[in-house]
Amino acid sequence: MNKPAKPPLHRDVEAFLRTGMELATSDRGELALSLAAKALAEVPGDPRMAAFGRLVSSHQVPKFHHGMLRDTQRNQLYRKAIERLAPGRKVLDIGTGSGLLAMIAARAGAEKVIACELNPMLAATAREIVAANGLSEKITVIGRHSGMLDRNGDLDGGADLVISEIFSDDLLGESVLPALKHARQELCAPGAIFIPDSAEILVAAVEFSGSSMALGEVEGFDLSLFERHLGPVRTFNPASANIALSSDPRTLFRFDFNAADYPALSRENEIDLGIPTAATNGLAQWIRFTLAEGIVYENRPGSARATHWPVRFTPLGPHTNPIRNDLRIGGWHNAEKLAIWPLID
Amino acid sequence: MNKPAKPPLHRDVEAFLRTGMELATSDRGELALSLAAKALAEVPGDPRMAAFGRLVSSHQVPKFHHGMLRDTQRNQLYRKAIERLAPGRKVLDIGTGSGLLAMIAARAGAEKVIACELNPMLAATAREIVAANGLSEKITVIGRHSGMLDRNGDLDGGADLVISEIFSDDLLGESVLPALKHARQELCAPGAIFIPDSAEILVAAVEFSGSSMALGEVEGFDLSLFERHLGPVRTFNPASANIALSSDPRTLFRFDFNAADYPALSRENEIDLGIPTAATNGLAQWIRFTLAEGIVYENRPGSARATHWPVRFTPLGPHTNPIRNDLRIGGWHNAEKLAIWPLID
Repeated sequence: MNKPAKPPLHRDVEAFLRTGMELATSDRGELALSLAAKALAEVPGDPRMAAFGRLVSSHQVPKFHHGMLRDTQRNQLYRKAIERLAPGRKVLDIGTGSGLLAMIAARAGAEKVIACELNPMLAATAREIVAANGLSEKITVIGRHSGMLDRNGDLDGGADLVISEIFSDDLLGESVLPALKHARQELCAPGAIFIPDSAEILVAAVEFSGSSMALGEVEGFDLSLFERHLGPVRTFNPASANIALSSDPRTLFRFDFNAADYPALSRENEIDLGIPTAATNGLAQWIRFTLAEGIVYENRPGSARATHWPVRFTPLGPHTNPIRNDLRIGGWHNAEKLAIWPLID
Repeated sequence: MNKPAKPPLHRDVEAFLRTGMELATSDRGELALSLAAKALAEVPGDPRMAAFGRLVSSHQVPKFHHGMLRDTQRNQLYRKAIERLAPGRKVLDIGTGSGLLAMIAARAGAEKVIACELNPMLAATAREIVAANGLSEKITVIGRHSGMLDRNGDLDGGADLVISEIFSDDLLGESVLPALKHARQELCAPGAIFIPDSAEILVAAVEFSGSSMALGEVEGFDLSLFERHLGPVRTFNPASANIALSSDPRTLFRFDFNAADYPALSRENEIDLGIPTAATNGLAQWIRFTLAEGIVYENRPGSARATHWPVRFTPLGPHTNPIRNDLRIGGWHNAEKLAIWPLID
């Protein structure tokens, strides 16, 4: 007696999507891609099946990848730093995504590149992209978080150069600090260097001239109590004409990844922004990387060049306007969160 | 012997944030607000503690609330429909958030309003907002998903009018279909009516004239394989000048919430968009609600009025240009996902 044939995947879309999405978020994410490819192979070129496959392979992949990979300024500055420092070195690329920075390092003459990516589905695609670009012999893509790598087993004794671009708009959100600290202590050969060399969280007083950011009254009801759930910040494109600096920028926190003393995972600081203009109504926070000496990326408000990192804006209360004294700013961060507050004299 | 005094919350920020964020995402979310209030009470008016409290109360609250609550068109049209239909009725508001639509119903003369909100922290704030606006006697806010309500215990025999605005830009993402079906079957009195009356998913061929959406080559490497992880769609502000319709819009799926036959939770359909222009390079998908007869909201591309719902754009492959025949579109949805694909003759 023959077993009944299993129905082809495209006949049971619900089961296909359910299984595919489960795999896409599991530690066997590469099977999600195989499943999508198999389903499409049953009905080659079928746009319906291709659309379902795309639902699976994009499931819970962060949307920022598109803007980041098309951020020409970011790409070019990382390339310049990598081309200067990668030749002859054993490179570790943390959070490789598409494999772009790893491929730049390999092409620049790295001895060897180990690229890790915590999403196994993305790691499988990075492996395919590396192969399509003829760099499989130089680059090994590992589908694990860098915290799960082994200096000897995976890194042949330790990396000489660590590259990472896992920075969010408040610098910290993707847990870059513990990842780089772990890499420095557990995954490096003696004397290893890091790209970026340093990163900074910058703050300035600003005049925001767009429509009111506060909820206040809506349809005749007072909704101001809902403000507390909206987060301390809104985000803006740094090229926005609605936001202008009203004080000099100051560095609130600086992280030196190549210093002997590794940056602390939690700190508090206070800075003085001087006397702001009467129209000051908020604080802007943005980021600056020194990738290598003289190679600097910054998404400062008023930047003419497009960037995928937004500027973060924190409104100041009405009691701060007009301000007659120095505007002092308090700040705190830990391994994943940043808080900023005004200290008015 | 006295017990050692517990350190005040503001002395142990890490513990405060950890506990607060855990509570904020638990089924006792209102305790997160109490914790933040208690910490602030220890150092009244302290901007540092206020900033930490804000990190807790905004933890994992979706960012869309701000744009949605400030979407004047949305608010006004819902108000018009509610003012027409709420007087004298027992109202259920599903997913009340800030409590806005529930308050509009109460002010319009609803007999009674039951508002539910699955996030207990937001429900606690909605309760405070309702009180601040003097409507506590008319509105009961329940911090549970509508699926956990009881017709007799919570709704006094059943609602006469169900209001909901839990629609995402593909209409389905917030599981509105199963929630409204459950409400119709389990939470209503006989003859109950719904706002919106109906909702539609609309599609048209479009010419997108902005910078290329495809990854293609980046820094000399072919990254096109990464496209599959970027999702079938990008989103646009409907007022964007970069997107112009190149066919008449057609309704791909329509959901009649007041019909005798409740909308199916999963369907497939095919529509014909006619012969598009040679410069057609994608499909736009947007939404339209008929809140009540003659009260219509639509985020159609080219809309002059601001709206918080973006238009979704799906690029067409290069093989579709130029198109000499009708452009037919396939579509499928289930209770949470939408897929759209071109069927080229």
